[in-house]
Amino acid sequence: MNLSQVAGGLDTIWVVLTAAMILLMEGGFALLEAGFVRQKNAVSIIMKIFVDITFGALIYYFFGFALMYGKDAFGILGTSGFMLGGDLSHIQLSISHDTYWLFQTAFVVAVISIVSGAVAERIHFRAYILFTIVMTGVIYPLAGHWVWGIGGWLGKLGMIDFAGSAVIHAMGGFAALAAAIFVGPRIGKYAADGMANVVPPSNLPLASVGAFILWFGWFGFNSGSTLSAINGNIGHIAVTTMLAAASGGAAVILFTMFRYRKADPPMVINGALAGLVGITAGCAFVTDSAAIIIGMVSGIAMVLMTELLDSKKIDDPVGAFAVHGISGSIGTLAVGIFAVPELAHSAGQGYAGLLYGGGWTLLGVQALGLVTAAVWGFAASWITLKAIRVIMPVRVSRDEELIGLDVSIHGVPAYSQDQDFIEIGSFKNP
Amino acid sequence: MNLSQVAGGLDTIWVVLTAAMILLMEGGFALLEAGFVRQKNAVSIIMKIFVDITFGALIYYFFGFALMYGKDAFGILGTSGFMLGGDLSHIQLSISHDTYWLFQTAFVVAVISIVSGAVAERIHFRAYILFTIVMTGVIYPLAGHWVWGIGGWLGKLGMIDFAGSAVIHAMGGFAALAAAIFVGPRIGKYAADGMANVVPPSNLPLASVGAFILWFGWFGFNSGSTLSAINGNIGHIAVTTMLAAASGGAAVILFTMFRYRKADPPMVINGALAGLVGITAGCAFVTDSAAIIIGMVSGIAMVLMTELLDSKKIDDPVGAFAVHGISGSIGTLAVGIFAVPELAHSAGQGYAGLLYGGGWTLLGVQALGLVTAAVWGFAASWITLKAIRVIMPVRVSRDEELIGLDVSIHGVPAYSQDQDFIEIGSFKNP
Amino acid sequence: MNLSQVAGGLDTIWVVLTAAMILLMEGGFALLEAGFVRQKNAVSIIMKIFVDITFGALIYYFFGFALMYGKDAFGILGTSGFMLGGDLSHIQLSISHDTYWLFQTAFVVAVISIVSGAVAERIHFRAYILFTIVMTGVIYPLAGHWVWGIGGWLGKLGMIDFAGSAVIHAMGGFAALAAAIFVGPRIGKYAADGMANVVPPSNLPLASVGAFILWFGWFGFNSGSTLSAINGNIGHIAVTTMLAAASGGAAVILFTMFRYRKADPPMVINGALAGLVGITAGCAFVTDSAAIIIGMVSGIAMVLMTELLDSKKIDDPVGAFAVHGISGSIGTLAVGIFAVPELAHSAGQGYAGLLYGGGWTLLGVQALGLVTAAVWGFAASWITLKAIRVIMPVRVSRDEELIGLDVSIHGVPAYSQDQDFIEIGSFKNP
Repeated sequence: MNLSQVAGGLDTIWVVLTAAMILLMEGGFALLEAGFVRQKNAVSIIMKIFVDITFGALIYYFFGFALMYGKDAFGILGTSGFMLGGDLSHIQLSISHDTYWLFQTAFVVAVISIVSGAVAERIHFRAYILFTIVMTGVIYPLAGHWVWGIGGWLGKLGMIDFAGSAVIHAMGGFAALAAAIFVGPRIGKYAADGMANVVPPSNLPLASVGAFILWFGWFGFNSGSTLSAINGNIGHIAVTTMLAAASGGAAVILFTMFRYRKADPPMVINGALAGLVGITAGCAFVTDSAAIIIGMVSGIAMVLMTELLDSKKIDDPVGAFAVHGISGSIGTLAVGIFAVPELAHSAGQGYAGLLYGGGWTLLGVQALGLVTAAVWGFAASWITLKAIRVIMPVRVSRDEELIGLDVSIHGVPAYSQDQDFIEIGSFKNP
Repeated sequence: MNLSQVAGGLDTIWVVLTAAMILLMEGGFALLEAGFVRQKNAVSIIMKIFVDITFGALIYYFFGFALMYGKDAFGILGTSGFMLGGDLSHIQLSISHDTYWLFQTAFVVAVISIVSGAVAERIHFRAYILFTIVMTGVIYPLAGHWVWGIGGWLGKLGMIDFAGSAVIHAMGGFAALAAAIFVGPRIGKYAADGMANVVPPSNLPLASVGAFILWFGWFGFNSGSTLSAINGNIGHIAVTTMLAAASGGAAVILFTMFRYRKADPPMVINGALAGLVGITAGCAFVTDSAAIIIGMVSGIAMVLMTELLDSKKIDDPVGAFAVHGISGSIGTLAVGIFAVPELAHSAGQGYAGLLYGGGWTLLGVQALGLVTAAVWGFAASWITLKAIRVIMPVRVSRDEELIGLDVSIHGVPAYSQDQDFIEIGSFKNP
Repeated sequence: MNLSQVAGGLDTIWVVLTAAMILLMEGGFALLEAGFVRQKNAVSIIMKIFVDITFGALIYYFFGFALMYGKDAFGILGTSGFMLGGDLSHIQLSISHDTYWLFQTAFVVAVISIVSGAVAERIHFRAYILFTIVMTGVIYPLAGHWVWGIGGWLGKLGMIDFAGSAVIHAMGGFAALAAAIFVGPRIGKYAADGMANVVPPSNLPLASVGAFILWFGWFGFNSGSTLSAINGNIGHIAVTTMLAAASGGAAVILFTMFRYRKADPPMVINGALAGLVGITAGCAFVTDSAAIIIGMVSGIAMVLMTELLDSKKIDDPVGAFAVHGISGSIGTLAVGIFAVPELAHSAGQGYAGLLYGGGWTLLGVQALGLVTAAVWGFAASWITLKAIRVIMPVRVSRDEELIGLDVSIHGVPAYSQDQDFIEIGSFKNP
């Protein structure tokens, strides 16, 4: 046993444990989204999460990882690493390639889960499977390659997106926006007079604990993105993550008390998440104070964007765009403002933020990267959905929607108070 | 501070953290089983989980660990280590004996939790406590000694069961089958004409998140079984675990869409779990592709076995046998087919699977071990239940079952919508 | 890369991971408390948990940490470290100061969450925010400084409180008691004749899984308190934690079967938690057998104290005082009885317990520390609530309480079975 073996083991368990924490976030997404939607669609949203994690992982294994992290071609896409095979020698990490795949898989599964919430209660299950395949196999991997792949064009320009405010959250959020617009609002969501009707969340305790599980997983998401335990930044990353989440939640508590005369539970839940999304790009590169500001701005912007979407009759049942799209955008730009040279340098980045003498360069690159991620996420998703609609319905029928997807598509309700058996047998064989 | 202290600390936190993850699986079992059964029995199943983790841990501390990992006698049982005392010098690990006990305790608690689901909604609480004591104190420890104890006869024959497809899941699954048959089907489950009636699960969102928690815990279960962080296999183990789970879930989504015209939520939940069970024996020794195949086969076999059990009027409310018994069996045999020599050798195992030039030797040993575990799990459980019935009823009365065990045995419903107090006081003291 | 870098990385991930586990306990508290209270107040209790973790973390960042761990003044309070600035050179750890802050933040958030349960269903949300600020900014940090701060007067006397039975649980429990008495019982809890009425918990499955999550987090709480992975005691700490929890739960199962003729689910849940609270002070310093005894005594004492409080018409809806106050007190004193010299010395402590030749010295110090923590927690909370009442109501109005805090204060019910939209729009714009 020598030092390098011990260090290798340390890095490996760090990445495996944090990957497991990120994958547990699927349980968090399931609870959050099932709690926010109506009872009659609670199972259908969870089935989509199962599609995310099962199909998502397999497709990313077969295709996505290679396109994202394979040998670069033209700064646009990777070309090796299908089924982890081929030349991956450009990936120089202390962990094995398959451990790296596992961590990245946890990321891709999170991306598609962002979209699942925006199309809740009305997308067709089969269409969603197809969309998942394209998103995890092509759309996300390409965006990821541009920023994170060795040789990706945005990365070469100096873009900083430590754990994915842009690549994951802004891209996923704008994909969610496209999907929400494409499938259209739920029946009855907007009255004839144009006002938004309200549906009370079916199960707020579940949604809340979903948020706490996501919060837990985020420590894996951000701190684990060092990909090595021997990184002096891990503690700082965890601290900025915590402060931004606390700040996002606290800001929304106060802001909704002021604006609505009550601390609004669904908004508070999303406020903490917005803070987490916002800090994801800069967690390693900004100060504690900047983290608090980023969290606060992300939380309040999330509230305002939720209102704006409703006024535009864009129906996003769980606030996926407001949380991920907007806060992810804020976080990406915030790096261009708040990045501290010493911290950024330690990550091999050459630029500093606007407030730290870096001028407009980094902010400009961040803005370019953000616009790219957003436009790509939106457009590619829209085109994918249009293509899917050629071969099958993307939205369930009116009757299926009114009955609820749980019973109409999956044949079983989420909650049942039946205390006795339903006699199927006696009907079948009288 | 020297290298060996650092390595020792690393191994210790690895085992403690993964043990904690496995113990969290009890929360997963509680949600999964409470979500699958009827409302009127949701608390009673969770109380059994509390018995598993409390009595199970204590009994394993006093007796079970010693029988399993104590100084071998005749290849059959251990004879030292009661309360972690006596000679345990044959256990040569980089972690302390009590840390090792903790990890193994997490395993034994999982075993008995497999049985709890199969007897849900009708076993008597006191009888279940007695059964738990025998299972965690004797039945499981003996089977464990044969395969994992230093000097155990199956281990000496070369049987490979990395994290327990045979010892934990097949053995536990066949014990669950015995118990389900012994206590008989729930009242009303099978109609007079022999057809199986259906009871909708009471809370599928809870069951789903239970599955995600189990999935999270499984990374501890499989990767943690290295018992050392300085093991080049940890990343690979986590990856095969992930792929098999994804493959099991995806296969069941597609298979039930084809077979039932709908992606069946309870089956999909169990499909992912079946994939996890299936890979548990071979996670360290098979390739990624083999993991995908094992997961797929485990998932589909689980669906078919669930149907078969119902046609045989064997009532297993949560599918414990189909998930653990069958997928555990498949996983145990799969090692004999897919074990790669290089991977198996690194674990000090001398054999290779059928497809890798090992001939039928390993497969034969695996089959022998599987049959042993299955027969032992079934027979010992049956005899134990028969013995318990001599001194107390194993099944609740008809009235207690119809009322539901929550109220009849534990005096409180799982869910209450009462918004006001029940005035007990005024009755007691008028 | 050298050994000290590897060791530093190891210690950092150990503390970050265990801090994340402790912070996940907020999800556990949310489920436990939402499950125990009535449906109409399930969201309001969770909103208080959000206040705990958001305001708690920020206030502790700005003030609390400095008062607790800053440069000592008079043995009474810390004076540096506001926003982690100033001279913290007296904190000599292998982890960075901000990593240390994160771990300590997880603790302070747990403290205030203890109080939230005791005042459930009737405290006013705004008053609770103010109380949280004072508790996390001043009350807890001062108590913490006395025992854990470098130079604190109780620590200098030799008091041992490894992970906080006194500082966190007894102090928090007595603060909860003060708050419960101060706000008074819920309407209808006590009949005119003085007998306690019963409200069935609204959701026992949620409460149960809350307990499992807390149990998981406790491994972080106790083992993580080593603050370094290179500590030979970590395995032992995790084992005593496990044994005490199992013993507390098992004891309450048997005790309630004997006393009430049924294993009482809410008591069993709290029994496991009582065992965990009890071992928190001594987990590193007592034997396995002592851990089992401490768990057992803590569990049974919790049941008796719950009965006693009801007979005194003190309404503590989730049993916060019985679990944290009493078991924390037992655990603190138990160190004075059971502390093993070798284990205590390894932690730099000079004393041994009564049964190990230490005489009455340590027990006396522990008793003094306990009384100090209890009196301080009770009195400071009482005074704080009195001060808050000068500027705003601490308790909601009778109507708000009868309607339930979820709808009356937060405008939304916890659970909604509405399957269609509520047409707000058409009212607003007819």
